[in-house]
Order: sequence, then structure tokens, then C-alpha cells
Amino acid sequence: MSLQRNQIESVVAMALAEDAPFGDVTSQTFIPAATTAAAELVGREPGLLAGAEVFEVAMTALDDSVKVTLLAADGDRFEAGQPLARVEGPARAILQAERVALNLVQRMCGIATLTARYVAAVADTKARVVDTRKTTPGLRALERHAVRCGGAHNHRYSLSDAVMAKDNHLAVVDDIGAAIRRARAELPHTLHLEVEIDRLDQLDAVLAGGPDTIMLDNFSLDDLVEGVRRIDGRAIVEASGGITLDTINAVARTGVDVISVGALTHSVRALDLGLDVTVGRPR
Amino acid sequence: MSLQRNQIESVVAMALAEDAPFGDVTSQTFIPAATTAAAELVGREPGLLAGAEVFEVAMTALDDSVKVTLLAADGDRFEAGQPLARVEGPARAILQAERVALNLVQRMCGIATLTARYVAAVADTKARVVDTRKTTPGLRALERHAVRCGGAHNHRYSLSDAVMAKDNHLAVVDDIGAAIRRARAELPHTLHLEVEIDRLDQLDAVLAGGPDTIMLDNFSLDDLVEGVRRIDGRAIVEASGGITLDTINAVARTGVDVISVGALTHSVRALDLGLDVTVGRPR
Amino acid sequence: MSLQRNQIESVVAMALAEDAPFGDVTSQTFIPAATTAAAELVGREPGLLAGAEVFEVAMTALDDSVKVTLLAADGDRFEAGQPLARVEGPARAILQAERVALNLVQRMCGIATLTARYVAAVADTKARVVDTRKTTPGLRALERHAVRCGGAHNHRYSLSDAVMAKDNHLAVVDDIGAAIRRARAELPHTLHLEVEIDRLDQLDAVLAGGPDTIMLDNFSLDDLVEGVRRIDGRAIVEASGGITLDTINAVARTGVDVISVGALTHSVRALDLGLDVTVGRPR
Amino acid sequence: MSLQRNQIESVVAMALAEDAPFGDVTSQTFIPAATTAAAELVGREPGLLAGAEVFEVAMTALDDSVKVTLLAADGDRFEAGQPLARVEGPARAILQAERVALNLVQRMCGIATLTARYVAAVADTKARVVDTRKTTPGLRALERHAVRCGGAHNHRYSLSDAVMAKDNHLAVVDDIGAAIRRARAELPHTLHLEVEIDRLDQLDAVLAGGPDTIMLDNFSLDDLVEGVRRIDGRAIVEASGGITLDTINAVARTGVDVISVGALTHSVRALDLGLDVTVGRPR
Amino acid sequence: MSLQRNQIESVVAMALAEDAPFGDVTSQTFIPAATTAAAELVGREPGLLAGAEVFEVAMTALDDSVKVTLLAADGDRFEAGQPLARVEGPARAILQAERVALNLVQRMCGIATLTARYVAAVADTKARVVDTRKTTPGLRALERHAVRCGGAHNHRYSLSDAVMAKDNHLAVVDDIGAAIRRARAELPHTLHLEVEIDRLDQLDAVLAGGPDTIMLDNFSLDDLVEGVRRIDGRAIVEASGGITLDTINAVARTGVDVISVGALTHSVRALDLGLDVTVGRPR
Amino acid sequence: MSLQRNQIESVVAMALAEDAPFGDVTSQTFIPAATTAAAELVGREPGLLAGAEVFEVAMTALDDSVKVTLLAADGDRFEAGQPLARVEGPARAILQAERVALNLVQRMCGIATLTARYVAAVADTKARVVDTRKTTPGLRALERHAVRCGGAHNHRYSLSDAVMAKDNHLAVVDDIGAAIRRARAELPHTLHLEVEIDRLDQLDAVLAGGPDTIMLDNFSLDDLVEGVRRIDGRAIVEASGGITLDTINAVARTGVDVISVGALTHSVRALDLGLDVTVGRPR
Repeated sequence: MSLQRNQIESVVAMALAEDAPFGDVTSQTFIPAATTAAAELVGREPGLLAGAEVFEVAMTALDDSVKVTLLAADGDRFEAGQPLARVEGPARAILQAERVALNLVQRMCGIATLTARYVAAVADTKARVVDTRKTTPGLRALERHAVRCGGAHNHRYSLSDAVMAKDNHLAVVDDIGAAIRRARAELPHTLHLEVEIDRLDQLDAVLAGGPDTIMLDNFSLDDLVEGVRRIDGRAIVEASGGITLDTINAVARTGVDVISVGALTHSVRALDLGLDVTVGRPR
Repeated sequence: MSLQRNQIESVVAMALAEDAPFGDVTSQTFIPAATTAAAELVGREPGLLAGAEVFEVAMTALDDSVKVTLLAADGDRFEAGQPLARVEGPARAILQAERVALNLVQRMCGIATLTARYVAAVADTKARVVDTRKTTPGLRALERHAVRCGGAHNHRYSLSDAVMAKDNHLAVVDDIGAAIRRARAELPHTLHLEVEIDRLDQLDAVLAGGPDTIMLDNFSLDDLVEGVRRIDGRAIVEASGGITLDTINAVARTGVDVISVGALTHSVRALDLGLDVTVGRPR
Repeated sequence: MSLQRNQIESVVAMALAEDAPFGDVTSQTFIPAATTAAAELVGREPGLLAGAEVFEVAMTALDDSVKVTLLAADGDRFEAGQPLARVEGPARAILQAERVALNLVQRMCGIATLTARYVAAVADTKARVVDTRKTTPGLRALERHAVRCGGAHNHRYSLSDAVMAKDNHLAVVDDIGAAIRRARAELPHTLHLEVEIDRLDQLDAVLAGGPDTIMLDNFSLDDLVEGVRRIDGRAIVEASGGITLDTINAVARTGVDVISVGALTHSVRALDLGLDVTVGRPR
Repeated sequence: MSLQRNQIESVVAMALAEDAPFGDVTSQTFIPAATTAAAELVGREPGLLAGAEVFEVAMTALDDSVKVTLLAADGDRFEAGQPLARVEGPARAILQAERVALNLVQRMCGIATLTARYVAAVADTKARVVDTRKTTPGLRALERHAVRCGGAHNHRYSLSDAVMAKDNHLAVVDDIGAAIRRARAELPHTLHLEVEIDRLDQLDAVLAGGPDTIMLDNFSLDDLVEGVRRIDGRAIVEASGGITLDTINAVARTGVDVISVGALTHSVRALDLGLDVTVGRPR
Repeated sequence: MSLQRNQIESVVAMALAEDAPFGDVTSQTFIPAATTAAAELVGREPGLLAGAEVFEVAMTALDDSVKVTLLAADGDRFEAGQPLARVEGPARAILQAERVALNLVQRMCGIATLTARYVAAVADTKARVVDTRKTTPGLRALERHAVRCGGAHNHRYSLSDAVMAKDNHLAVVDDIGAAIRRARAELPHTLHLEVEIDRLDQLDAVLAGGPDTIMLDNFSLDDLVEGVRRIDGRAIVEASGGITLDTINAVARTGVDVISVGALTHSVRALDLGLDVTVGRPR
Repeated sequence: MSLQRNQIESVVAMALAEDAPFGDVTSQTFIPAATTAAAELVGREPGLLAGAEVFEVAMTALDDSVKVTLLAADGDRFEAGQPLARVEGPARAILQAERVALNLVQRMCGIATLTARYVAAVADTKARVVDTRKTTPGLRALERHAVRCGGAHNHRYSLSDAVMAKDNHLAVVDDIGAAIRRARAELPHTLHLEVEIDRLDQLDAVLAGGPDTIMLDNFSLDDLVEGVRRIDGRAIVEASGGITLDTINAVARTGVDVISVGALTHSVRALDLGLDVTVGRPR
């Protein structure tokens, strides 16, 4: 899976408009239109790159004579001080785009770098780490890509492309198994059907409906083990609920297939990157 | 200053479209159209509310028969377990909007709560804490509002509404004071003119231009004191650069007027809020 | 699954703008602004209703004082001459919206009515009839809803929400089974994975990859029977390719689970509906 | 008259977004980004080409490195098996655009091919065949172009660019002739004024108003002859109402100038075209 | 003909966004949210009203609790000091919309008032005064409405809804009459065909083509008389080119049917209107 | 400060769509697609150029093979008959864009030329001439640029980027000085704070609040002199209210810093420019 160019372009255009609704008055005032600049995107701390193409689109969006040379690819690890991309072109365009480019790429690198730590923590198990819908409104496509750069997997994209029945959805039915079967009979055969349960005693009723995935939400480790045992390959098993770097390995060792971690995206620490700019001196 | 209703509506509409490009298949499948639900927005940890109107707009955007009753106002402190708003209406609309509402409000409360800690840390000084342009692309208006809810101030909105000349802008000129005066002569008299310097030895040249604000970037505490002394009321003095909760009080005590803190918005930890939903049981 | 109100509203708004970019000069000229009208949507031939809400949205979009009373629901059969909805309100708004409303609803009823014939033709089997992506650009959500009104099921919504690997996708790989397994390992666990084959001799390699659905494209009846036998429940079996009302029952009797029929939407005959309008006479 | 490039581009962009709201997961998964493909658009049945430029825009919209060579022009007849265009470029872009390109061009060719049959049927008369506003919402510009490719003419574009007074418009006036004259006095002199009548006895009153065109709606052949005789060149005469390939020649022979045929566009059978793709094999 | 509500709403929304991209900081700062205001739209000089509904939409666009009472209708004459509308509601919304409302309505009243002078100047003739495409980009619908309020007529709306062949269009053809006939044969029968000529010696060739209207551009009064004589009712005659209030009566007396006057819209003097606001005093 | 390319492009795109919602039927009919044209933009009266880039964008927007050579730059004076730009390319594109290009550039040149007269009238003083928010809705960025081309300055861009407290804003407060100080304490330090007064006796209270600028609205010359004397450099002094070419020099001589003139933009006389087109003759 990959990030669509038009998704990047539309986020960048929105961000640039927000950040300069009627132009960058500083650059227009201090920098002659013909002045050029060169710049380097540099890691100020070690991390994992995500968003190289976002950087490129942001830097060239205002003036397509700006040239970007990428020095690293998404998914690459980098050190503090390492140059990640080079930029050359009209100084006004580069200075006006700088903050937007950094705001987006720092966030994406922050997600990828954190994600990689979660993935590493379960490397000795068969569990896959996945993201959630706790993404920043407007930036889901970018943040999901950053999660993939970090080595994890995506969960469903949205409310539209898979079914996830939770307690509130099941609260209205008398027979959960029958309700799941009715849903299956109505829905496209291509729609994945996942059901979330909070307690082991719900498991048999759900299994009777034949869902594709069963999410065990906020289960103890013991209950996870028991859940995996009872499901016994009849559905994918997902664990969820407050999982941290400290707990994820133990959760993975219970035998679950999928571990969803909201923290990958809901509380992003921007990774520290800088744009070192050299504005051309007039002779 | 206040958040514009249409800014909220446009963010919410975008977020809902992103999260359900072709509908919420789960609710459509499991919840009859006529089923109603009641819900409470509840703090899962103590915090400071920001985004009450955002919550209201998100909850009513899909179906205007949803009713929201706010139980707290922006800027209010709340405890873990405290209900912040009540919602009633069609279950499908409430369940479909839940995640978007939480994603937005948790982020805003996270910002407001953190901001309030920075503001409290300088309460014994005359310095004002301000935000930066390190906001989430697309959410600037909401995040700036959250900063205000937390008791801090906003900096310029964008590149368009104030001048901020940094080293890259000044690198092309021989005489900084003359360049600032030329800018002043060209620009609207209503445009605030701020200049950033990295070293004390730049101060005299900048002061000669007569800027409205001088930003002392990454200055030591001693240099801040000296900068304030030499500026001597001829410009507003802003301190900036890597300021944390640990260091902000000492910075404020140097006598600067304004302290800008990128961390208010660039690395938001979402505050833990929940939506406790009771879906109506059919009789 | 249901049609989203905002999807209807956006199609209707686009259609009304296309049909009257600068107003309905005829109504503005001949009909006084205060003149009211009453109208009935009537079937001119027997059929199956789809699009009642679309009709309502179209009729009220220009003037929300127009009142629509629905006399039949989506999925209902109707006779020639049977009134399906009543409309009352400003004559200008009703006359301006008439053509757009009919263009949309006639198309939807045409699809639903035809679909119901396909569904009836396999009623004695367990096969489900499904649509394809051969829908009218811009009207997919409406046409899929019409298919559901006709008693059939939907296939995937778009290229984004399920995988369907065809010959062109598989042409680049040496080991089809391995390629499918690699895809599975990379993709979200919620993405349905369907593979299309043209010949029985491809079946074993595909089965080795463990897809969710196997589509047997343009198979003879005998080959369908053999395919079903060999798949033996390990995947959903879909038949596809030039299936008509004359052939669908025989296809269904081969034991396949799903039959996709492009003709449901790619060549729609608009059902004949009329809007009988009585414009108020001034006294 | 010709199809505007920006109209094509906007329909194609909308269609591609609808068909892949968050990317083509199949191509992204199975086809390496660097893989190229070649393809031919081929007629699977004989027909008349309309939409060559639409095909070109659709194929290049996702990646402008895709190259399209048109082998036939709009209005050309083609045989089953005849190649109509060649495509070369990145395989992902070609496979993602395939369905949208075919959906649009098959529809346009269907319209053009059918239209040509209507035109041929009146070739021995002076009557012109014209379309109606019974077009697919969103595709009017494309469908009108297809009608022109088929050799017929367009009627008014929309409710905005010509007046067409029907029974409902005239029902509110006492003196039809006076009403038409009042309309003429009020309207721009550049607006064509057409009046529809259902019965011969309405003719004198309408003629008294001096319209540009009189439409005789659902008239018998005898009444059409009589209408033409009585109008006697004082207005363009248009026949309308349920005209088919079987009846159009007789209608044309009554001497009418214009025959409008809703069936040209309201019930389109997509012409069978295929895209034969060869995906590059990696070495 | 009338102004479409959605055209007004879209112009107003655009104008309000332009005038307050991130809110009205003054009102937000000085006026409490609960403060109400009352206001009167008053003519500061005599004139003719156009844009009453535009005023209403602008005043209510930001807050639908604002109430507008119109005291005069479009087309009404008013005196200096005369109140034209009353407004009541939240003070912030009224003050924020004030400038946009005035900018639009003052311009429309300026056009209507000037137009009425042109119309009065030819009141003793049969000529109609019409506008041109020299309107303000984005405001055409509003400005054409103002022209109608002033008692004049509109010309074609745009390049799309009528043909106007000028010297540049005719420069490429050998036989003008034949070219016009070919155009007529190709174009929809509903498209009005106007031809512009600069000299009398072009007249016969144009007449041979049978256009609907012939525009005599920059003709002397004598040549206009001669043109009218020679056209002799076979086409509508339009005079154009630098016509002023001083010359229009003489032009009209030549017997032309239509006189187009670019000055109605291309150089608008805003009529002086004021909004007298009384902001509620807190008790 | 400079005009943003994307602002120009968006105005031009809107204007072209308004002027040809479904194409230029005249050019499409009379001009073969392959015909080329050459054209010159020529001043028909002396003036001052503003909008050269707008002309270029408009001319190339429909077909990027059109080539524009600018012969003068924004701010240049030109004589009647002087060529300002040359255009070459497809005749259809040039003829379709002609009116939109002229409508925009004539207006901009009209503003620049008038503005230059106001600026010249105060050339012997230190006062700067500034524009107001009385601009044409949708064209503010272009009109402000034209004002700058004429040698004047801009005032605030919108309600969002500076505070301007008028009588209505101050009517709700008891202590104006305190209110201004409260505002200052709440607002970003980068927001310029201007206060408008109508009478000298309001001056002390306003000065007590320490605003950045004080606007003396509709003051007599004597009162302006007295105002300047009493403000004595503690704030920028702006004069406003019905200032004309006849009165501006006297106003400037009172010693005010800034004179705002609504007439620069609220009642624009389009400067007379023409596009002399030579359409290529086929051989």
C-alpha cells in the first residue's frame, strides 16, 4: 500500500493556504523575488523517516522551479545531524513553505519512530501491531503511511470499509450470533466483519455468528490466553485497550494475531527536524 | 477572540467525510434507523475543557435532531469521571460521530490542559505565554482556541498578518536597521513588525530599525537579562527556543514580555475523554 | 446498509446546478413567485421503487417550503398509474426541480426493477446476485442503493475497500500462491482478498494463497461445477462474465455463492415515471 | 461546438475519486511502482466512437507520464476488434484508471452509435434529430457531445439558456399570446422562446405570441402535418414524445424541422469496449 | 427573470470569507457575545434600490438569529435619509457583515440608479437598453439583476448561451453569409445568432446568412438610420459602441431595437448608503 | 508585498467559468481549432499599468500554448496607443479569454491611475495614502495590488488582521481607555490596535488606552491640526472621511501620517484598454 500523490497534494495545499491566507508578507518584504536559496532537511535527533514525498510536495507546491533531492527514503533510520533532503530554488517559496513542510514531516517521523519501537517490542512473536481511527482529522492517510513506515500495519481505513460491531451495536439485539449472521447475509461478501467483546462470557455467542475477527478489549493477559484458546483459529484475534510499550510484549505472547495501539497516532510527539537554509547573497 | 462557528463546521465536515467516505456500515447494519441513544461525554482524567462547541457541532452534524446539553464551558477545570456534556438522539448519528468528536476534543483538551501548566508556571511574573505556528495543519483555529482556553495568548495567526524577520530574511541585507526602516515604509501601518535575533551583538542594528517586537531566540538567561536591559522598553521583548515547563519561570524572570512555546501544540497528548453511550433497547 | 443523506444532497445539488447554471428562465418569466403547485409522482409502467428519498431531496433542495409526502417506500412494487409521492409548494421550485428528480429516480427505479428480475431468477438457489463497478460515474452510491432495493447485494464499493487481483495483477509474479500470501501479510487484516481466474488450471496455485473469494470469470457451466467442487468451501466462489437473465439460473445451480452482473447498472433503461403537476391558478 | 477540456477533466477527477477514495489497494499490493504496461482500447462490437479525448484524459489523470495514442477520432465508425487507442506507462496508473475510462467511453459510444441510427432513419428528410435534458446528472456535457458525434444536434443546454414554456407554465395565464408577448418584452433579445402544445386547438393562441419554436408534443402524424401547415414557417416546428426508431421517419416526413428524442440519452446501453492490457514482466 | 437565492448566498459567503478569513477580531474583543444591536440601512443620497435580498442574505449569513425587515423593494426609488431596511440581532454578526453588505448593495444601487437614467433617456422611443459582458468578475448575476431593477434589459449571460460573431470570428471566412448559414446548420436551434459589423458595406453579406440580430458597432447616426432601413425587420438591430447619456436618445431615434451600454456596469460609482447601528448598552 | 500567483489564478478561473459555463459557442463554431491568432494589449488612453501578471494568467489559463510577452511592468505609465503586451496562440483560447482579461486589467489600471493622482497630490507632504475595505467582493487582493502600483499603501487586509475599534464598538463600554487596555491585554501582541474617533473630546480617553493608531474621522482641517498636536507622536494619526482629490493636500498638510481614501476602490472607472486581435487566415 502506498500514499496517493493527490492525497499529499491536497493536504499540502490546505496547509499552505491556512498558513498564508494572503501571502508571506515577511518574505515579500525582505527577500527580492529573484533571490535563491539552498536548504537541507536535517534530523536534530535520531529517528525513522516518514514523509519524504510530503516534504517534496510541500517544497515545490508554491513554485515548481524549486528542486528537491531526497537523500533518504521512507522507512530509513537516520542519525542526529544527518541530512535527509536538499532543496534549491527561489528563496521566497522555500521560506514560505518551510513551516508547513516541517509541521507535516516532523509529525510523520514522530509516528514512524514511535511505531518502530512498538514493532520491535513484539519482534519475537507472530503478532502484528496495527493503528486505530484515533488519527488527526484531515491527516489520516499521512499518519497511516507513517505507521507503515514504522513497520506496523493499518487497521480499517474508516467506518465505511469494514464492520466493527461494539457493545453499543450489540446492545440492541437478543441473540448476538443471529445478529452477526443476519449482518453477514445482508452485507457485501467483501466486507470484513469484526466484533468486539469485553468479557469472555460473550465469546460463544459471538463465535456462533462466525465473524472474521474478534477483538478482545481490555482483557487481562490470562483472559487473552483463554480467548485465543477458545477461538482456536476460527477467527483472527485482536487485542486492544491501553496497550503500552511496557505491556505489548506480554500481550503478544498470549498468542493474539493483532494488537491495536491508539497511542501510535493519538498523542504524537513531533520528531525534531530542522531546515537549514542558506539564502543567496546578492552580489 | 473566539472561534468562528464556520471554522468549526468546516473542520467537522472534513473529519466526518474522512472517517466515513461512504457511510458507517456497522451502524447501518446493526442499529435500526429509529433507535435512539443517550450519551455522556466524561473526563477519564482531570483536565481543562476546550472544544465544547466543537463537540456540539460534531454530534449534530449528521442529524440535526441530535440534542446536546453542555455541562461545562471552555476553560473550566474538570475531574476524572465528571460529565461534560449530554447527548440524545438517533443512535446511528451519535455512534458515527463519536470518534471524530473525541479525536478533536481530546486534542483540544490536551492542549488547554498543558497550556494551563505553562501559564501557572509564570503566574508570578508579567510575561505572557504564547503559541507558535507549530500547529497541526488544518486545525490551527481550533488549537489556538485551546491555547486561549488554557489561559495563554496567541502569536500571529499566519505568515500573512504580521511580519517576523528571521536570520534568513536578514541575511540578504547589508544594513539591518535600514532594511527594517524600508520595510516599515512599504508595509501597511497596521502590520506588526517583529525581528528575531540569535546573538546580542545583533541588537543595536535591529533597534536602529525600530521594530515593534524583538525576539531573542535561544538566548541564555544572562543574555536575556542583558537584552531586556538594552532594549529598555523600545520594543516588546519575546523569548523563544526550547522553553519547557522546567525552564519557563526562569525565562520569565528575566523580564521578557512574551514567551513563545512551540510545545503547546507541536506534540499534543490527547486528554483521555470517553463517550458513555446507552443505546435504546427496542421493546 | 443505507444511502447517506449527504451523498444524496451532493448529487442533487450538482445536478440542479448543471441543469440551471443561471436559473430557470421559463419559470421565472411565466410563473409568479407566489404561485403554488401540487404534483404527484406517478408510475407510467409497473416497477419497483428506488430513490424515494432522492426524490424528496431534489424537490425540496431549491425551496425548503416545498412539502413532499411519500406514498411508497424503497423496495415497494407499484403499478402503472400508481401515485408514489405527493408534492406541494412554490410552483417555480417544483418545476425547476422536476427534470432532475425524474432523471435520478427513473434511473434508480430502472435499476431496481431489472435487479429484481435477476434476483427472482435465482430464488430457488443459494446464490446471491451482486453488482459491479460498472456504475455511472458520480452516481455509484445511488445505483448501489437501487441494486439493494431490487433485492441484490453489493460488491466492493471501490478500488480502495477490497482487493481484487486479476490476470494483469498476477501476470508479474512467478508464484501466485506466494504472491497472495505476501499480500495478505502486508495488507490490513480487515481487507477482503479476492482473486480472479480465467481457467481451472489456475485454481490450485490460487487456493495455495488462501484468498477469501475466488472469482471464476467466463467459465462454462461444467467448469463452474468443477471449480466449486475443487474449492470445496475454502473460499467464497463468485461467477462472473456476461451473465444474463437467460443464463443466471443455470449459473446459480452450479453451486457458486455469488454471481456478479455488470448489466444491473451499466446499461440502465430509465423506468417511465411522470410528475403530474397542477399549477395553482391565480384568482 | 466542442467539448471543453476542463469539463472532461472535472468529470474524470470526480469519477476517479469516487472509484478509489483512498487508493487502489490491489495495484499497490501486487504491482511494483516501477512496472510498466501497454494497453489497447478495442471495440468488442461495431460502433461509432465518441469520447476519445475523455479516454485520453482518464488514462493520464493519475500519472502524466502515461502516453496515449489515439487511433481513431470521434465520429469514426469502427469494427469489432478494431484498436481505437494505445496506452503506455506505469502499470499502476493504467490499471487504476481502466474502469473509469471504460465506464465513460462505453456510455458515450453507446449514445453516439444509437444516435447515428436515428439520424440515418431521417436522412431522406430535412428534419434534424435533437437530444433532450434527459441526460445523466453530471454527464450532460459528455452526453451532448456524444449526440453530436452521432450526427444529431443538441437542444438547449439547460433551463437557463432558452425558454421552453409547457402546459404548466401556460396554465396560469388567461391569454397565451399575450403572455408570450409579455415574456418576449421582458427577456433578453438573445433568449430563444419555445412553446410546447399538446393539441392543435392551442396553436392559434400560441402563434399570436410569436414564439421562435413551437413544440408539438405527442401529436398524431395527421396532426403534425396539420400543425406544420398552419404554422407555415412562422416558427420552427419541433415534434416530440415517445419517438422511436420505428416511428421517426414517418414523423420526419410530416415536415417538422426538429425531432427531439429522449431515448438518445435516457436509457443508454453501454457499447462493449475492452482494454487489453499487457503488464510488463520484471526480468 | 430573477436573481437565484443560491447565487446570492455563494457571493455573500465568498465576500465574508475574504473580509474575515479568521474572524472579526475587533467585535470579538470589544463586543460581548450576548450584546444585541439594531441597525437601519439608509440612503445617504437619492437613488434606486437594487439588492434588498442581497442585504438580507449578507446580514443573516453569519447568524441566522439576525432579523431583517425590508422597508423598500428592488426597483423602488428612495430619498436621501430614507430607511430601506431594519436589522436586529447579535451585534457581532451585524458589525462583521456590515462592510460586505454595503459593498455589494451600494454597487448594485449605483448600477440601478445609473441604468434608470439611460432608460429614461430613451423613454420616448421603442429601443431597449441592454447591458454587456463588461461586468465585475464574480458579480455578473448581481449586476445583471441591478440592470433589470433600473428598468433595462440583459444581453446574453455569457459566451455559452448565444452566438455573437465579431470581426475576428468572421475574418477567417471567405463568404460571410455562407459561414452564418453553416453555423446555423450546426448549432442548436435554440441558440440566438447575432453578428456584429463595423461598416455598412458588410451588411448585405451578413443579411444573406439570416442572423437573428445584427449589431451595428460604432456607427454614425446616419449609418444607423441607413442600417435600420436596409435590414428592414429581417433581424433585430442592435447599436453599440461608446454610447453615453448624452448620445443615447439620438441613437434610439435612429430606429434601432436594442442599445447596449457597457457603462452600465464597467465603471460603477457606488451609491452612498449607510448602516446606522445602535449597539445595545449593557445594563 | 506582492500579489500571490494562486490568488490570480483563482480569480481568473472563477471569472472564466462565469463567462463561459459551457464553452464559447461562437469561437467553437466559427474558428477552426487549429487557427492561431496574434494580439496586442493596447492603451486607448494614457494611464498607469497594474495587472500585467493577471493579463498573462487570463490569456494562458485556457490553453497553456498561448504565449504572452509583457512590454510594460506594473507601475509603468503608458500613453494612448502604446502596446502593453503581445499574445500569440490558438485563436479560440485568446478570443474566449479576451473579455475576462480586459474586465480585470481595465479595472486594475483604473484604480492604479486614479491612485497615482491622489499620491501625487500629497507628494509635498509626509502623509501616506491608503486604501480601505471598500473593495469589490472577490477582488480585494487584485485591487490592493493596483493601489500599490499607483504608489499608495494598503490598510489592514481584513477584519482578521488588525483591530479597528469604531463608535459602535466603543458604545458598550464606560471607560474607553480601560477598554482599550483590556483589549491589548487579551489580544496577540502582534495585532495592531487602531481606534476611530469622531470628535476631539474623545481623544484623551482613547490616548489613555495607548492605541497604535488613532483615526480622526470626518474632522475639519482645524480639528485635524489640533488632533495631531495633542496626539504628539504617541500614536499614528490617520485622517479619513470623504477625502477627495480637491481636499487631500490640505488634509495632508495638517500633519496626519495616514490618509485613507475609499474612493480609490469603491467607484472604479475602468481604464480604456483594447485587445487588437489578428486571427490567422487559413491558406
